[in-house]
Amino acid sequence: MSTKSKYAILGGGSWATALAKILTDNGHHIQWWMRDEKNIALFKLRKHNPHYVSNIRFDMDKISFSNKIEAVIEAANVIIIAIPSAYVVGSLQALPENVFVGKKIISAIKGIIPPDNFLLNHFLKEKFKMTSDQYGLVAGPCHAEEVASEKLSYLTFSASNKEDAAQYSTDFATDYIKTIVNTDVKGVQYAAVLKNIYAVGAGIAHGLDYGDNFMSVYIAGAADEMASFLRKVAWLDEVKEKHNYAASVYLGDLLVTCYSLHSRNRRFGNYLGKGYSVKAAQLEMNMVAEGYNASKGIFEINKTIGATMPIATSIYKILWENETAQDAFDDIEKVLV
Amino acid sequence: MSTKSKYAILGGGSWATALAKILTDNGHHIQWWMRDEKNIALFKLRKHNPHYVSNIRFDMDKISFSNKIEAVIEAANVIIIAIPSAYVVGSLQALPENVFVGKKIISAIKGIIPPDNFLLNHFLKEKFKMTSDQYGLVAGPCHAEEVASEKLSYLTFSASNKEDAAQYSTDFATDYIKTIVNTDVKGVQYAAVLKNIYAVGAGIAHGLDYGDNFMSVYIAGAADEMASFLRKVAWLDEVKEKHNYAASVYLGDLLVTCYSLHSRNRRFGNYLGKGYSVKAAQLEMNMVAEGYNASKGIFEINKTIGATMPIATSIYKILWENETAQDAFDDIEKVLV
Repeated sequence: MSTKSKYAILGGGSWATALAKILTDNGHHIQWWMRDEKNIALFKLRKHNPHYVSNIRFDMDKISFSNKIEAVIEAANVIIIAIPSAYVVGSLQALPENVFVGKKIISAIKGIIPPDNFLLNHFLKEKFKMTSDQYGLVAGPCHAEEVASEKLSYLTFSASNKEDAAQYSTDFATDYIKTIVNTDVKGVQYAAVLKNIYAVGAGIAHGLDYGDNFMSVYIAGAADEMASFLRKVAWLDEVKEKHNYAASVYLGDLLVTCYSLHSRNRRFGNYLGKGYSVKAAQLEMNMVAEGYNASKGIFEINKTIGATMPIATSIYKILWENETAQDAFDDIEKVLV
Repeated sequence: MSTKSKYAILGGGSWATALAKILTDNGHHIQWWMRDEKNIALFKLRKHNPHYVSNIRFDMDKISFSNKIEAVIEAANVIIIAIPSAYVVGSLQALPENVFVGKKIISAIKGIIPPDNFLLNHFLKEKFKMTSDQYGLVAGPCHAEEVASEKLSYLTFSASNKEDAAQYSTDFATDYIKTIVNTDVKGVQYAAVLKNIYAVGAGIAHGLDYGDNFMSVYIAGAADEMASFLRKVAWLDEVKEKHNYAASVYLGDLLVTCYSLHSRNRRFGNYLGKGYSVKAAQLEMNMVAEGYNASKGIFEINKTIGATMPIATSIYKILWENETAQDAFDDIEKVLV
């Protein structure tokens, strides 16, 4: 990637908006696809996203908006996909098979793609013949709200192509963003999915009125379970490189998602712990927390991987099998050490 | 330990009081030493500790109080030492060398003993010829305030003598306390010391106005640094057994101490982050947070152990070398990944 990266962002949520702020703060002109023309019009009028992290004000000269997704991809050479995982297939499936040829892709997705429980790179390979060296991803720990207020945050860029990861790392580094390069493309994606499940559980525990002592034991157990899943995946793939699962992109992301009040997954879980049904909690939040579908996806995937995951399984049972929150946590209490 | 354990508690702080609640809730009659006769009188009158976790009410029939330490030790066969580390030498040094002969000892201390930076077992061996099989310890994650309100908490009992650890584990298990057995006597003690240093740092970071994103990266870095110190200690001691540093007694205890508002070390750090001097913060809190002396102790000890600890060293510089909090965190920012 010797020429300057020309970025496109697909998606109009809070994470997409935070990434747009970082890039435009760094002087990049970006192409930005949002589905809804009305939102684009409102954005242009108000100079901020009307629905998400609306305290971020943008220099409109640095953004080309469009609701034509193919045109947006066409105009850029690095495509950031920041669409909620449940809407990825719907958003991309009408595109021609060669639309990503010659493009780099950065996944900013923190979920598994239904109905096949694919990671984004898997989906893009199947559907668009994308090759591994086209693909990278950006991960936190990074709640968009703190990017909005320019609180120092760390982003990790992971790609099998190290030069690409290094380039993204340079393009996104600002005085309030420090960037890290990593090569564990599969593990980082799974970690980003898993942490949302455990964060739903942390919210449930909080809603059930467990205290700080228990929460710390629960989250330590989640960290251990997550690392054992990631080790199992790496082992099955015969990955030789050892990754440090205490690094920010694994443990740090788990911590911020479980502990921060910005966490939507934690908030969703909190409703469940307080006795709301899954449906009622989703209605109350007016969104589907990523951890909800993730718990089902990981439950299915783990039938193949075979990691020992009693915590994630208990959360799954609450979300998908009508087990009461307290019954499931009675089981979790027993496996924590 | 075939006869029923007869417990003595030395110390009158909040942790001692929480442990006394657990034992008396389990039907044990305890011997309890407090230095100050006036406090004992007030305790008896009010049926609660006048100064610490005073919402715990006690059945006075289950407690024999005394300010005569030797008599209290004499009347028991398991001695729980729950004296702040800075006062251990002063409290115990006048005792006869054979006072602990035939007794088991449980350390409930979360610090290093000045001036020699000894762990408690090291000090007791030097001063009282205690043998390793006499010694065990109790560790959290467990803030006393949540024991008071009977929030489910996990305690780990560590001893080289596994039968003893199992016995303590039985004696302390209640409906609100789950107990775990462990054999890593040295590592668990160091973890309990280290976590206080990192919690002071977490408080400083909060006081400096870092956000949740950064905090998660900082604490993940602390977890990694702590594990690398513990691995180095085990390696130097040629310990063959592998310990899981994501277990509650290591990572869990770090998390609750860094994140919980009950944490005195975090609160102390918060004052420093907001610009109070060390002296002013100590005066304001009317106590010395364990992490303060611990940072010096670990700094000295690590000259021998040689672990890579840039985070703990930066906290040490704030506490003991007049480095400004922001300057030290500028250094910490650079080592986090």
